[in-house]
Amino acid sequence: MYDLVLKGGKICTAHDSYFADIGVVDGKIIEITNCIDFSNAREVVDAAGLLVLPGVWHTHCHFRDPGVTNKEDFESGSKLAAAGGITFVIDMTNNEPAPATVETFLDKKKNAESKSHVDFGLYGAGLHPDQVKSLFDLGAIGIKVFNTRHPKDVYPYISTLGVVDHGVLYEIFEETAKTGLVCAVHHDDSDWVKRMVYRDYIDKGNINAAAYVDAFAKGYMYGHGMVSGLASSLYLAKIAGVRLYVLHVGVMPDGAYDLIDFAKSSGQPVYAELEACSFLIDRAMAEKLGPRTYVHGRNIPRARDALNNGPCDVLVLEHAPHHKDEVAKGWDDNFGAPLGVIGAQEFFPMMLNEVNNGTLTLERLIYLTSENPSKIFGIYPRKGIIAVGSDADFTIVDMNREHVLSSEESLSRSGWTSFDGVKVKGMPVFTVVRGNVVMEKGVVKGARGFGKMISPKKQ
Amino acid sequence: MYDLVLKGGKICTAHDSYFADIGVVDGKIIEITNCIDFSNAREVVDAAGLLVLPGVWHTHCHFRDPGVTNKEDFESGSKLAAAGGITFVIDMTNNEPAPATVETFLDKKKNAESKSHVDFGLYGAGLHPDQVKSLFDLGAIGIKVFNTRHPKDVYPYISTLGVVDHGVLYEIFEETAKTGLVCAVHHDDSDWVKRMVYRDYIDKGNINAAAYVDAFAKGYMYGHGMVSGLASSLYLAKIAGVRLYVLHVGVMPDGAYDLIDFAKSSGQPVYAELEACSFLIDRAMAEKLGPRTYVHGRNIPRARDALNNGPCDVLVLEHAPHHKDEVAKGWDDNFGAPLGVIGAQEFFPMMLNEVNNGTLTLERLIYLTSENPSKIFGIYPRKGIIAVGSDADFTIVDMNREHVLSSEESLSRSGWTSFDGVKVKGMPVFTVVRGNVVMEKGVVKGARGFGKMISPKKQ
Amino acid sequence: MYDLVLKGGKICTAHDSYFADIGVVDGKIIEITNCIDFSNAREVVDAAGLLVLPGVWHTHCHFRDPGVTNKEDFESGSKLAAAGGITFVIDMTNNEPAPATVETFLDKKKNAESKSHVDFGLYGAGLHPDQVKSLFDLGAIGIKVFNTRHPKDVYPYISTLGVVDHGVLYEIFEETAKTGLVCAVHHDDSDWVKRMVYRDYIDKGNINAAAYVDAFAKGYMYGHGMVSGLASSLYLAKIAGVRLYVLHVGVMPDGAYDLIDFAKSSGQPVYAELEACSFLIDRAMAEKLGPRTYVHGRNIPRARDALNNGPCDVLVLEHAPHHKDEVAKGWDDNFGAPLGVIGAQEFFPMMLNEVNNGTLTLERLIYLTSENPSKIFGIYPRKGIIAVGSDADFTIVDMNREHVLSSEESLSRSGWTSFDGVKVKGMPVFTVVRGNVVMEKGVVKGARGFGKMISPKKQ
Amino acid sequence: MYDLVLKGGKICTAHDSYFADIGVVDGKIIEITNCIDFSNAREVVDAAGLLVLPGVWHTHCHFRDPGVTNKEDFESGSKLAAAGGITFVIDMTNNEPAPATVETFLDKKKNAESKSHVDFGLYGAGLHPDQVKSLFDLGAIGIKVFNTRHPKDVYPYISTLGVVDHGVLYEIFEETAKTGLVCAVHHDDSDWVKRMVYRDYIDKGNINAAAYVDAFAKGYMYGHGMVSGLASSLYLAKIAGVRLYVLHVGVMPDGAYDLIDFAKSSGQPVYAELEACSFLIDRAMAEKLGPRTYVHGRNIPRARDALNNGPCDVLVLEHAPHHKDEVAKGWDDNFGAPLGVIGAQEFFPMMLNEVNNGTLTLERLIYLTSENPSKIFGIYPRKGIIAVGSDADFTIVDMNREHVLSSEESLSRSGWTSFDGVKVKGMPVFTVVRGNVVMEKGVVKGARGFGKMISPKKQ
Repeated sequence: MYDLVLKGGKICTAHDSYFADIGVVDGKIIEITNCIDFSNAREVVDAAGLLVLPGVWHTHCHFRDPGVTNKEDFESGSKLAAAGGITFVIDMTNNEPAPATVETFLDKKKNAESKSHVDFGLYGAGLHPDQVKSLFDLGAIGIKVFNTRHPKDVYPYISTLGVVDHGVLYEIFEETAKTGLVCAVHHDDSDWVKRMVYRDYIDKGNINAAAYVDAFAKGYMYGHGMVSGLASSLYLAKIAGVRLYVLHVGVMPDGAYDLIDFAKSSGQPVYAELEACSFLIDRAMAEKLGPRTYVHGRNIPRARDALNNGPCDVLVLEHAPHHKDEVAKGWDDNFGAPLGVIGAQEFFPMMLNEVNNGTLTLERLIYLTSENPSKIFGIYPRKGIIAVGSDADFTIVDMNREHVLSSEESLSRSGWTSFDGVKVKGMPVFTVVRGNVVMEKGVVKGARGFGKMISPKKQ
Repeated sequence: MYDLVLKGGKICTAHDSYFADIGVVDGKIIEITNCIDFSNAREVVDAAGLLVLPGVWHTHCHFRDPGVTNKEDFESGSKLAAAGGITFVIDMTNNEPAPATVETFLDKKKNAESKSHVDFGLYGAGLHPDQVKSLFDLGAIGIKVFNTRHPKDVYPYISTLGVVDHGVLYEIFEETAKTGLVCAVHHDDSDWVKRMVYRDYIDKGNINAAAYVDAFAKGYMYGHGMVSGLASSLYLAKIAGVRLYVLHVGVMPDGAYDLIDFAKSSGQPVYAELEACSFLIDRAMAEKLGPRTYVHGRNIPRARDALNNGPCDVLVLEHAPHHKDEVAKGWDDNFGAPLGVIGAQEFFPMMLNEVNNGTLTLERLIYLTSENPSKIFGIYPRKGIIAVGSDADFTIVDMNREHVLSSEESLSRSGWTSFDGVKVKGMPVFTVVRGNVVMEKGVVKGARGFGKMISPKKQ
Repeated sequence: MYDLVLKGGKICTAHDSYFADIGVVDGKIIEITNCIDFSNAREVVDAAGLLVLPGVWHTHCHFRDPGVTNKEDFESGSKLAAAGGITFVIDMTNNEPAPATVETFLDKKKNAESKSHVDFGLYGAGLHPDQVKSLFDLGAIGIKVFNTRHPKDVYPYISTLGVVDHGVLYEIFEETAKTGLVCAVHHDDSDWVKRMVYRDYIDKGNINAAAYVDAFAKGYMYGHGMVSGLASSLYLAKIAGVRLYVLHVGVMPDGAYDLIDFAKSSGQPVYAELEACSFLIDRAMAEKLGPRTYVHGRNIPRARDALNNGPCDVLVLEHAPHHKDEVAKGWDDNFGAPLGVIGAQEFFPMMLNEVNNGTLTLERLIYLTSENPSKIFGIYPRKGIIAVGSDADFTIVDMNREHVLSSEESLSRSGWTSFDGVKVKGMPVFTVVRGNVVMEKGVVKGARGFGKMISPKKQ
Repeated sequence: MYDLVLKGGKICTAHDSYFADIGVVDGKIIEITNCIDFSNAREVVDAAGLLVLPGVWHTHCHFRDPGVTNKEDFESGSKLAAAGGITFVIDMTNNEPAPATVETFLDKKKNAESKSHVDFGLYGAGLHPDQVKSLFDLGAIGIKVFNTRHPKDVYPYISTLGVVDHGVLYEIFEETAKTGLVCAVHHDDSDWVKRMVYRDYIDKGNINAAAYVDAFAKGYMYGHGMVSGLASSLYLAKIAGVRLYVLHVGVMPDGAYDLIDFAKSSGQPVYAELEACSFLIDRAMAEKLGPRTYVHGRNIPRARDALNNGPCDVLVLEHAPHHKDEVAKGWDDNFGAPLGVIGAQEFFPMMLNEVNNGTLTLERLIYLTSENPSKIFGIYPRKGIIAVGSDADFTIVDMNREHVLSSEESLSRSGWTSFDGVKVKGMPVFTVVRGNVVMEKGVVKGARGFGKMISPKKQ
C-alpha cells in the first residue's frame, strides 16, 4: 500500500533524467520503477508530461515571525513558498526576539512548527559566541550573522543584532567552526557606509527613491562597504577554520566575486549564495520599482557568468517582505524606509523561465537550488536527491505552462511582490513535501503545522 | 516476474549511497526499491554486506584479436575482465588487420561479438581521414590514433598504423570533430625518440632490462617525446575543434599534466586517461619486473595529485599482454622486446585497495571508472549510472575481502600478470552485465558471445 | 673646479656596473668620466676598490622628534643613518604633536631642517581628510595612516592618531588620491586584536616577554589583525584610486603576501615595504632579544622569496627606538612596554652581508633601497640614480670589510641596537649627500642642519 | 682631445632621461657631463633639441650575402640600416653557402667585415649539432634554426637548411645550451602546412595574391603550423635547458602568445621577438601590398598588448628583401614567389611615430630595441646602454621631424620597401657607431668595412 505514487513523469536531477514512477511510504521514497501496478496507492499524481525534480529550496526567507507578523508570518510565508514550488525554506534571524539564545530559539522553533506548510531550517542568530554550541545542539541549520548596522538603524537591521566588532565576529567563527555548521554572513563596513551615505545623500536632503537608486549604483548602499567587510571576513574565517557562507553575492559590486574566487582557489571552504536580482532587475526596472526593491543588477553579464561558472553555490531570490503601507513612504525617504525584495513565491517560476530562455540549464538550476544547498547545510542525502530512502520532496513542473506573476496572486501578508506583471514560461504544478501534496496547480493544500524543522546531520 | 533481483546491498554511485534493492527485467533496471516482495524473481543476488556499484569500465584493452591471439583473444580478454569486476571494455586498434576501414572494422566487430563475455566498445583505427565517417556510422566508440612509431618498429606499434605526419593527424582530427566522437591519441615524437635511444643506448649496446629502466627514467622511452607530441597535438586539436582524449597520462613526464591543465583552463575539450601504473609501480618494483612492465611512476606524488585533483578524467590500468616466452627475452634486449602491462583483471581490486588505504574515495573511483567514461564516450545514461531505465550493469564488491593477486589465477592467455603477489583488500564478488551475472566470487559464468558492442548515442 | 670627485670606484646601479670617476658641483653630478684630470677638485674621495652606489634610502624611521627626544631626535637619528650609509630617510608621524595640520607639519619640518645630517622626507599624518591637500602643498612625501590602536594604548601608537573608522580612512584615501602621493598605512583590526590579546594573555596574567613571543607567533600581536585590516583597505584603496603603500609586510602572516599579490595582479597600484626582520630574526633570536624586538620571521623562506620575487617594492629595517630603561620593563610586562626594533644604522651593513652570502643580488638591493623608493615617492630621477644632473648622493661600500655591529657603536639616543654582536661582511665606508661627505669610515662628519626636506615632484 | 662630442642633447635610456653632453675617445664613451669645454674635440654633433638614445638594434636582417646579392648585400644592407638609425644588425643564415660550419662561417664573417657600415652579429646556422661549439668559438651571436621547409621549397627557405627532425633540433638545443647562446628558431610544422596548402589552395589552382592572403588569414601560411612547432619546441628546449629565442612572434596566431606566456610563467628562459607587422599592417593593407608582404596583423589589439605588456622581449620589423622583378610574379602565383617584408630602413622611424602616437612609450621602445637585445645576446653593457666605458653607439632622433617613407629613398638593392608612402613623425637624424657618425640627416657616411662583428661575452 503506497501513500503516494508519482506516475508517468520524467525524473530530472542535477546529473541526469529518465522516465520512472515513484512510490512513497511514510514520507520516504521507497521505490523508483517503471513496472509496478500502483492500483493500491492511496494517492496518485499524474505526472505525465511533467518533470519531477527533487524538492526545491529557498534559503533566504524573512518570515518576520516572531516580530512583525503584519508583514508576514510562518504560515503565510510557508504557504507562498509552497505555492512557488518550494519544499524547504531557511528562515533568517532578524526577529523580535531574535533566536540568539536557547529560549528564543526554542520559542521560534515551536511557533514555526505550529504553522509551517513546508519543511524548514532555522538559522541561529550569531550574536553571543557562547550560545553557538547550544544553538547547534538545538538543531540550528547554521549561524547567521548580521555583520552590519543600517546607517539609520532602520528595521529590519535590528541594531542589537549587528555584530560589527571583528573580535566578536571571530569568536562566533571559532565557535561555529567547532560545530561544523556554516556561518552565514551579511557583510558590511558600517562605519564606511554611514559616513558616505550621510555625507553625500542624507545630509544633503537627497533621500527620495531616485536618490537611493543613485546611491546604490554608486556603491554606497549595499555596495563597497559590503565588499570591504567581506574582504576581512574571508581572512578571519580562514584562520578560524569556519565554513563561511557569503550572503548577498550579486548584490555586492564585482570585487566580491573576485575575492570569493580568490578564496576558493586557495582551498578555503567558502560558499556563495547568489541573489537572482543581480540578473533579474536592471536599473530601469529598479527606478520603476522604487522602494519595492533595494537592489538591481550592477553588472548583469558578470552575474550571469557567476550563475553558470561561479562563484555561485546556491541560487536564491530573497524574500524580505514589508507591508505595502510601510514601503510607500520610501518614494519620499528611501533611506529611512524598510527595504526588501519579495520573491519566494515568484523565484522558481522565474528560474524555470530562465531555463526556457536558455540562459541556465535545468541541471544547473537543480544543483543550485536543491542538491547543493542540501549538501552545504548537511541535510543531504535526506533531501536534495531523488533516491530510495530519501525524503519524498518533489517539485513537479510544467515547462510549457505560461503565467503572469502578480501581486493579486501573492499569498504574502505584505500584499505585493516585486515581480508584479512579469510573464514566465515554466511553472511548478505540484509541491510535494515528505509525500504530501502541499500545492496542486497553484492551490496550497495540506495542513498548517505539517512542516518540520530539519537539522543537519551530526557527525 | 523479475529476471534478476539484487537484494540487500548498498547502492553506491559517484554522488551518493543508500540501501535499496534493484529489480531487473530484460537487461534494464526497472525498479529501485526497499519495499517489494521479490519472490517472483528468476534469480536473486544476495548483496547484503556488499556495495553495488554501476558497472566498471576498462577503457584501455589490447585483446590482440584479430592478430596475435596467442597473447590474448576476445574470449580470454573479456573473461578476465569479468573476473576483475569489469562490465565494459574498450578495445584498441593495433590488430592485424587493424580496424581502419569498413571491412576490417566489421570483421573485428563480428568476431568480438561472437566471443565476448562483457559489453564493449571498439575504437576505429585512425589512419585514413576519409574512413572516419564510416567508422562512426558503423558504431565505433571513438577514433584511436597511434601518433608514434616504435624506434625499432617492434610490435605492437605496427608500423603501418603510425600516423606521424601532422597533416594526416590533423585531417583525422577534422573528420572526427564532425562526428562528435573523441579522438584518442597515443602521442609521440618518434624522430626524437629514435635518435636519442639509438644514440645513447642501442648504438652503445646498452639494451638489457636495466638499461631500459634507465632510458625510461631519463625520459627517452615513453617520455619527453610523448610530451613533445602532445604539445603540438593539443594545439592542432584545438583548432580542429575535436574532443581530444589523451592516452597514457601518468606514463609521460610531469610536463604532460601541465599542458593538459593549461588546455583545460582555456576551455578546450580535452580528457586525460590516467594510467594507474603512475602510482602503483615505483622504480624498484620496475627493476624487479623487468620486461613485465614498460613503465613506472616518474613522480608518484604528482600522479596521486592528478588522480584526486586532476588532470584525470578516466582511470585505467592498461592491459597489453604479450606471451611470457616473448617477454622473457626482454631481460637481455628490452628495446627489441614487445612490452606492456597486464592488468585488466587486477585493476579494480587494486583500486578498491586504494580506497581501503584512504588514498582515493570510492565516489571518485566510481566517477573515474564508470560515470565519467560513460559520459565522455557518449554511452551515458545508458551505462555509468544506477537508474531506472539504464542497463543493469553492476560491479558488486566486498570491501573487506582480502586476496593475493597472482599469475596462477590470471585468465590471460599470456599466462601472467604484472601484479603477481600483490595483496589487496577489497574485491569484486559479482559482475553483472545487462542483468546477467557473468562472474560470481571469482568464477566467470555466462555465455561466450553474450557481450554486445555498444555505440555512442548519435545526436 | 669640482667640489667633489669620486675617483677610481666601480659604479653600481640597479641595472649595471662600470668603472668611472664622478665629478660633482653644487651638489649635483655634473660628470661621469674616465678621462679627466681632477687636480682642480676641492675634495677627492679615493674609491679604488670600492663600489659607488646611488644613495641608499631608509624609509621607515621614527626619530621621535618632536615628542620623546630622550629616545631619539632628528640629530641623533640622522647621524646614525649617515653612519649606516643612508643618504635619505623618511620619518614617521607618531610625534607629539603629530604633523597632521599645517602648523604642526611646518614646525616639524623646521625642527628637522635645523638638525638633520642627511636629506629626508616627512610623512604628513593622515588624520583629518581635509588637511591632506595642505600637507601635500607643504611638501609631505606621503600620507601616513595609523589604522590601528594598541590594545593597551601604549605609546608609540598614540591613541589620537589611530584612524580605525573606515569612513575616515576612506576619505583620507580619496583626498590623497587627488594629490598623487602614496598613502602609507600601518593596517590593523584593533577590535580583533584587543579581544584576542586580553582574552588569552592579559586577562590571564600571561604578559611577560615569553608570553609576548607566543602571542606574536600565534598571530595575535602584529598578526592576523593586520591582515584583516589590509584586506579591507586594499579594496577601499582600489575604489578610491589611491596609491597604497603597505607598511610592515613581512611582519604580517603569509596572507598579506597573498593579498598584495592578488591586488597587484589586478593592476592595482599597491606597494609593499618589506621589513627585513622577516628574515633576519628567527624565533630563537626573538626569545633572546625579548623586548628589544617585537617581531620575528614567521616564515623566513617565504620572506626571502618575497625579497627576491615579490611582493616587495621597498626593503627596510625599521628604526623605532625606545630608551633602554623603558624597554627593560618588557621582560615582565611586554604587552605594556613600548616596543620596536632599532636598525637604521645596522640595516645596510646587514644587507651587504646578505649580498655577500648570495641570498640577494646587489642590483636587487640597490633597486629596493634606492631606485624604486625614489620612484614610488616621486623623487626620481633627482635621487635614486647615478646620472648627470641628479643629486650627488652616494653610498660607497667596501664589500670585503668585516665588522661586528654593537650597541656600543650605536649613535642612537636609546643606547642600544637590536643587532648587537651580529657579524657582517660588507660595510658602507662613505656616505655622500649632495656632494658632501657626511660619513667617512664610520665617522659622521658634516654639519647639523645640512640635510634638506625633499618633496615629490608636483605634476 | 675627444674624437667626438655630442652636445646639448637629452639622453634617453630605457629607465630615465636627462640633459648631458657626451665625450667619446677611441669609440668608447669616456665622459657624460654638463660642465666641460669641448673646444678640443675633433668632431662635435650638435644635439640640441634632439634625443640621444643608446644605439638601436635590428635583430632580423637577411642581407642575402653570400648568396643572392642581387636582392641585397652586406654593404647595401648595412647602409640602409644606418640610414634608418640602426647601429647594430643581426644577420640571418639562409645564405648560400649557409654559415653552418667553420669554413662557411669564417667566409661570411670576412665578407661582412669588408663591407659593413655598422656593427653586427652573425647567427651560426643550426644544422649540424657537432658544429655548434665551433660556431660559438668563432663568435656567433646565437644559433639560428630553420625548423621549417617551405611547402614548395621556394627560396629563401633553403631546403637543406631545414631542421624538421626533432631529434636533430634537440641535439642542436643540447649543444647550444652548453655554450650559453640563445637558439633562435623559426618554428613550423611543415608536414601540416604542406598538406593543408596543397589540399585547399595549390591543388585547386587558387594561388594568386588574394588566395595567399586568404590562406594566411586562415592560419595555413605562417600560421597554425608555426604554433604547432612552437608548442613542441618549447618543451624540448625546456628539457634541453637551452635559452630559446622565438622568432616571428606576432606573425603566428594568438596561441603563440599564450604558449610563450605559459612557458615564461614556469620560469623557462624563453624570449619573444615581436614582429612589428603584427600591428603595422592590417588585412586591407596586405591585400594592397600583395606579394610585397607575406604577413598582416591577425589580431592587432593583441599584438599591441604584447608590445606593451608581453610576451615581447625584442621588437623588430623584419628585413627580408627580394628583387622587385621576382616579387612581381607573386600577383599570379604567390605560393611560388619568394616573400618577405622590407623594413630595416623604415623600422625605427615607424616606431618613433608610434611613440608620438602614444601607443608605445619611448622607454619601452629603447628597452625592446637596445637594452634588452643587448642583454639577451650577451653584448651588454658593451652595447645597449649609455654609460662610461661602453661603446659610443647612438641613435639621435628628432621627435618632431615629419617624413614620408618611400621606395625611392630606399637604399635596398631590391628597389622597394613594403612601407612606401607611409607618413611618420619622428626621425633618426644621426647614427653613431663606436663614435663614428655613419649617418647624418639621411645621408650615409663613413667607410665600407668600418662595421665589426661583435660576439657575446664568454663567461
